[in-house]
Amino acid sequence: MSDALTQLKERLGKVSDLERISRVLGWDQQTMMPPAGSDHRADHLSTLRRISHELLIDDETGRLLDELRPLEASLEPDSDDASLIRVTRRQFEKASRVPTELRAEMTRASAQARPIWVKAKAESNFELFLPVLERTVELRRRYVDCFEGVEEPYDILLDDFEPYTTTAEVREIFAGLKAELVPLIADLRDIEVDDSFMSGNFPVDRQERVAKEVVALFGFRPDTWRLDPTEHPFASGAGVDDIRITTNYDPQTMKSFFSTMHEYGHGLYSHQLPRHLERLPTGNSCSLGIHESQSRLWENLVGRSPQFWRFFYPRVQEAFPDQLGGVELDRFVAGINRVKPSLIRIKADEVTYGMHIILRFELEQDIINGRVDLRELPQVWNERMKEYLGVDVPDDAHGVLQDTHWASGLIGYFSTYLLGTVMSVQIWEKVLEDVPDLEEQVERGEFAALRGWLGENIHAHGMKFSPQETLERATGNRIDAKPYLAYLRAKYGAGVAA
Amino acid sequence: MSDALTQLKERLGKVSDLERISRVLGWDQQTMMPPAGSDHRADHLSTLRRISHELLIDDETGRLLDELRPLEASLEPDSDDASLIRVTRRQFEKASRVPTELRAEMTRASAQARPIWVKAKAESNFELFLPVLERTVELRRRYVDCFEGVEEPYDILLDDFEPYTTTAEVREIFAGLKAELVPLIADLRDIEVDDSFMSGNFPVDRQERVAKEVVALFGFRPDTWRLDPTEHPFASGAGVDDIRITTNYDPQTMKSFFSTMHEYGHGLYSHQLPRHLERLPTGNSCSLGIHESQSRLWENLVGRSPQFWRFFYPRVQEAFPDQLGGVELDRFVAGINRVKPSLIRIKADEVTYGMHIILRFELEQDIINGRVDLRELPQVWNERMKEYLGVDVPDDAHGVLQDTHWASGLIGYFSTYLLGTVMSVQIWEKVLEDVPDLEEQVERGEFAALRGWLGENIHAHGMKFSPQETLERATGNRIDAKPYLAYLRAKYGAGVAA
Repeated sequence: MSDALTQLKERLGKVSDLERISRVLGWDQQTMMPPAGSDHRADHLSTLRRISHELLIDDETGRLLDELRPLEASLEPDSDDASLIRVTRRQFEKASRVPTELRAEMTRASAQARPIWVKAKAESNFELFLPVLERTVELRRRYVDCFEGVEEPYDILLDDFEPYTTTAEVREIFAGLKAELVPLIADLRDIEVDDSFMSGNFPVDRQERVAKEVVALFGFRPDTWRLDPTEHPFASGAGVDDIRITTNYDPQTMKSFFSTMHEYGHGLYSHQLPRHLERLPTGNSCSLGIHESQSRLWENLVGRSPQFWRFFYPRVQEAFPDQLGGVELDRFVAGINRVKPSLIRIKADEVTYGMHIILRFELEQDIINGRVDLRELPQVWNERMKEYLGVDVPDDAHGVLQDTHWASGLIGYFSTYLLGTVMSVQIWEKVLEDVPDLEEQVERGEFAALRGWLGENIHAHGMKFSPQETLERATGNRIDAKPYLAYLRAKYGAGVAA
Repeated sequence: MSDALTQLKERLGKVSDLERISRVLGWDQQTMMPPAGSDHRADHLSTLRRISHELLIDDETGRLLDELRPLEASLEPDSDDASLIRVTRRQFEKASRVPTELRAEMTRASAQARPIWVKAKAESNFELFLPVLERTVELRRRYVDCFEGVEEPYDILLDDFEPYTTTAEVREIFAGLKAELVPLIADLRDIEVDDSFMSGNFPVDRQERVAKEVVALFGFRPDTWRLDPTEHPFASGAGVDDIRITTNYDPQTMKSFFSTMHEYGHGLYSHQLPRHLERLPTGNSCSLGIHESQSRLWENLVGRSPQFWRFFYPRVQEAFPDQLGGVELDRFVAGINRVKPSLIRIKADEVTYGMHIILRFELEQDIINGRVDLRELPQVWNERMKEYLGVDVPDDAHGVLQDTHWASGLIGYFSTYLLGTVMSVQIWEKVLEDVPDLEEQVERGEFAALRGWLGENIHAHGMKFSPQETLERATGNRIDAKPYLAYLRAKYGAGVAA
């Protein structure tokens, strides 16, 4: 019996290694690789995917899982081994539906699409991107077709990013959010808040120094982490001791500072995953929604709080004396929390952010269900931006081409950003209960207790449980938009004060 | 029949992908990876090696190779397909002797040993390195034991780096070299040549700028190449369109300039390998000796020639005016060609370099044959350095610990440096025959004809032929130390003049 478990773990160890190697190659592709290398990279990633898929769906995996049923039944369901068998069975059953050829082709197409998207975005040329997008969508439809008895095709895609979560559930949560966000945005959109000091002259070398300082303060250690510049910020890495976060420095604004804090939150989650489950599926992060709850917590609940800036603002003023020397703390905190509908998701404020996601979530369903002609996507995008946020999209680079996700084949991903944002507030409130002086600690630049709480209550579970069970174990509740909406109303409804 | 060939190519394509991924991970490990990541990296590299080894030695590979015998016999031996079948059969037969566990363990041990060597070298602490070295040697002995009827155990190791080449052949060539180098060094060692200007103040940022300028002049293109700093310079990459060379900038000397040119030579070989054989064994480089003939050609025949410096010296003077503004060209060229026995192989001049290699070649045979106690290695090293080069080794960092090879499991590798150096002169003389104004071109900073000749006559063969057959196709001769010795006598015997 335990022999079967050992054999299963050995097989899964290889699968995990290949997945992590792919992540390092993905990081390399976006930070280091010479541009001409993308064809090699497509070959290499698709070979890795092909081999790991074959290892996972091999009959031997199924045989081992069958042999392990009695063991699984004899163990506590939340034990490491029962969780491993349960999680692996779910992954095996889903993956077994998908032919290796299709899986490898999806990977190859994504690796090839990325440089085309980079070019299309740079030129704001949707026509250039269209064939690649058509191929991506076609491959996702073929992927969905591998499954039988599917009520909503989008469920299959969503589940790859947020397991155990249905489109209907997300739709309901988002409907509740939309109903409150629309009037809140209408209330706030015309309030004049001065954030003019956020644009101007922020030399990249100094931004980099301050970014390194803040992540070091949070808990970045150079022997296990890297921070590099990239076009589109992301977090990646090879394992708990090799964490790689990236950011994008724009010399005209220090807004990237917030995405650095965001990526730190992702990195910390990956760094604090359970070491004893390394090289097993259960040693991975739970879901992208839970991942995002971590990044948004550090970006917003810490990084846009008056407490944090009472501690850190003098350092930033010192780094950018021309820009910020004459800006007082209250004005600065009000400025970084200014609510104003805008074009770019990753630069959106906390209140309007949700509408960017809801737009994409709805649009992706329309795409997969064939309710929108891809050739008309820019037009549809622009109409909905006008409807949801009241903004006019000047060109596709600032519209439908802004995100890398579709180029990377990531359809079904976007909603996890908003799910995570909602959960981040639930988690924060629970940390506040358990660590009553949390805000005072933040004001002193101390983050050990926060890191410890997150590590123990969320990160330590890895992927053993569903996202909602993980959240429930950490906070006592499943996902609920009310605390998030209450937080937004409390913070923004009354204006902002430091 | 052609089905079997297609299947073989598909299988070899995966093997090739996995090997190239390992190279990218190796590059990452030495340039980018956070130090704590080495345990993950050891897992990942060993999994890649395990899978690629299993793919190669699988019964199905043998079956396909058997099925292809009639096709092979029907083809011209130097055709792409006959060469592929022949080369693959040789690799299959050698690899099949080696259990996957041992192969994976060798890879894992190397990945784990590297950080220990880095630390041991930094602290000049051989005791720290000893257990790792013992493990490396033990694994290589087990590897050699996989083969039957071995006359010289070292043959098995050497063949991994220089296929079709025996220890006896190398011993004979090296004996001839030693007989001439020893008296030549004795003649030259006391000649006073001023190279004091090579030490002093060479700011790293300016070195980097000049290094980039020279490789750009040679043929480095930023869309396909990278140049990064590292501890121990090397060349790597993911394929013909993703070439990564590294160098080490020491602010007190510009000697790294020569290792940059050296690595450029390696990079150009990899960049000009046959595109239509990509993802096949025959699309790889022929041997490390042939590889080194390319790097030494660019480093020495181009990079230490008066012709090159007549063109490029003004640029270097401009970059380092304090150091070189007052040094005339003749003095500079004499200085960079100064012959003086010294401690560090990679900093050795053209004449003494060979003795560094001969020492290692002999010592490795003693190690593998158990004729030297590893605990006494520093002492043996120091005695032989005194005997061969007349220098006193002050500490192990400048002695037995200087090279990364043994830490990386690379026993059997060193002799290829000297074989390549010898061949580089044979090749250069043949290029001079075919491109009569080559030296004038170098003096004008023009390298297209040289790149073209090397590409067409050497690089284009990939790994289709043995090193000696490759050399013979390019130059009409097999390896011969005479041209190299004549070159050294002509250049150094008469003193150096620009």
